[in-house]
Amino acid sequence: MYQLHYFPGNANAAPHMVLEEIKADYELCLVDRTKNAQKSPEYLKLNPNGRIPTLVHGQFILNEAAAIVLYLVDNHPDAGLAPKVGTPERARFNQWLIFLTNSLQEELMIWQYPERLAGDDQAALDVVKRGSERRAGAFLDVIEEHLEKNGPFLLGNKLSAADFYLAMLARWGRPMTRPPRSRPHIANLLDRVTALPSVRRAYEREGITDEIC
Amino acid sequence: MYQLHYFPGNANAAPHMVLEEIKADYELCLVDRTKNAQKSPEYLKLNPNGRIPTLVHGQFILNEAAAIVLYLVDNHPDAGLAPKVGTPERARFNQWLIFLTNSLQEELMIWQYPERLAGDDQAALDVVKRGSERRAGAFLDVIEEHLEKNGPFLLGNKLSAADFYLAMLARWGRPMTRPPRSRPHIANLLDRVTALPSVRRAYEREGITDEIC
Repeated sequence: MYQLHYFPGNANAAPHMVLEEIKADYELCLVDRTKNAQKSPEYLKLNPNGRIPTLVHGQFILNEAAAIVLYLVDNHPDAGLAPKVGTPERARFNQWLIFLTNSLQEELMIWQYPERLAGDDQAALDVVKRGSERRAGAFLDVIEEHLEKNGPFLLGNKLSAADFYLAMLARWGRPMTRPPRSRPHIANLLDRVTALPSVRRAYEREGITDEIC
Repeated sequence: MYQLHYFPGNANAAPHMVLEEIKADYELCLVDRTKNAQKSPEYLKLNPNGRIPTLVHGQFILNEAAAIVLYLVDNHPDAGLAPKVGTPERARFNQWLIFLTNSLQEELMIWQYPERLAGDDQAALDVVKRGSERRAGAFLDVIEEHLEKNGPFLLGNKLSAADFYLAMLARWGRPMTRPPRSRPHIANLLDRVTALPSVRRAYEREGITDEIC
């Protein structure tokens, strides 16, 4: 039994889609950000950075959404959500997952929470917000160009957990001036991923949609 | 034969330490940043984001330093630089590697190149520089606390490629007001890693030291 500590639409969404796709036995534990529960002493014991998600598997506690994705795909190799370890295809999968987490995700986090860098300096907040949106857009352009040449998925014809990760981040970027979905090959990937019954179930259990509230 | 496209001290340093530690047959190819070669049409064919490093292995081209580290440790499992895939220890290794690349590395990149976010707005540059240094420091504090309880290495008693990654990033952070090495358990890890003959050779071949120029 896996326990996924989550908040609707946070970085748990990709691990959640994976849990559904691999048909794992799991339960969700809400970390109530509206009450700052991610910084509570109890949660900090699970996740010293106070970030969401955390995966608990028996006695094993794991942080970092991308690491949780790797753990799940390697525990359930038959689900085929990542190429076999030791192959060039797996290295490419790792490359995309790492790029998504260290570039697109981080830039979108700055864009969503510019005050973490810029504090309450309104002029700096505006500059950081614009700069991070521009940089996230450039990363999305690189992904779009890749998908145009090598799509429809990040690994070509093969759906992988990296596509789930991209779908999660693209959802975060919906309010961008030029949202991820405005790029046709990313839109095509998103249509395919979000139509999967596993992904529908994950959305439903988190209570999220692709509408912009 | 591996080819590592590098610039002295850049994100190639950790993959380079790994190449030395696994005793791989490799050559270094300089990407001359002083001439902006990382944005040249030739290099962009290898690395569409124009970032350093890139690993070339026969016909296979791989980007992202952390993905290159994973590729190398999985191609050379006997070197023991990462726990076996499918074990909780490997998941923990992945967690640290991913945290290092998506949190500490990204924050240090903003701190080193605040203009990428803030452009030429001097007030915003100062705010971003201070904010990213503060955030990188907080990540280092989390690592220090972990090492105090669970060190001397990130995985306890076992040296891994994640320690090489931390050593690379700690080197970037030398000019911080409170440098990584000012934390005793990080300093102890750095002393152990940088004393390794493999790491000494990588430093020497890149022409780098731990001095602050």
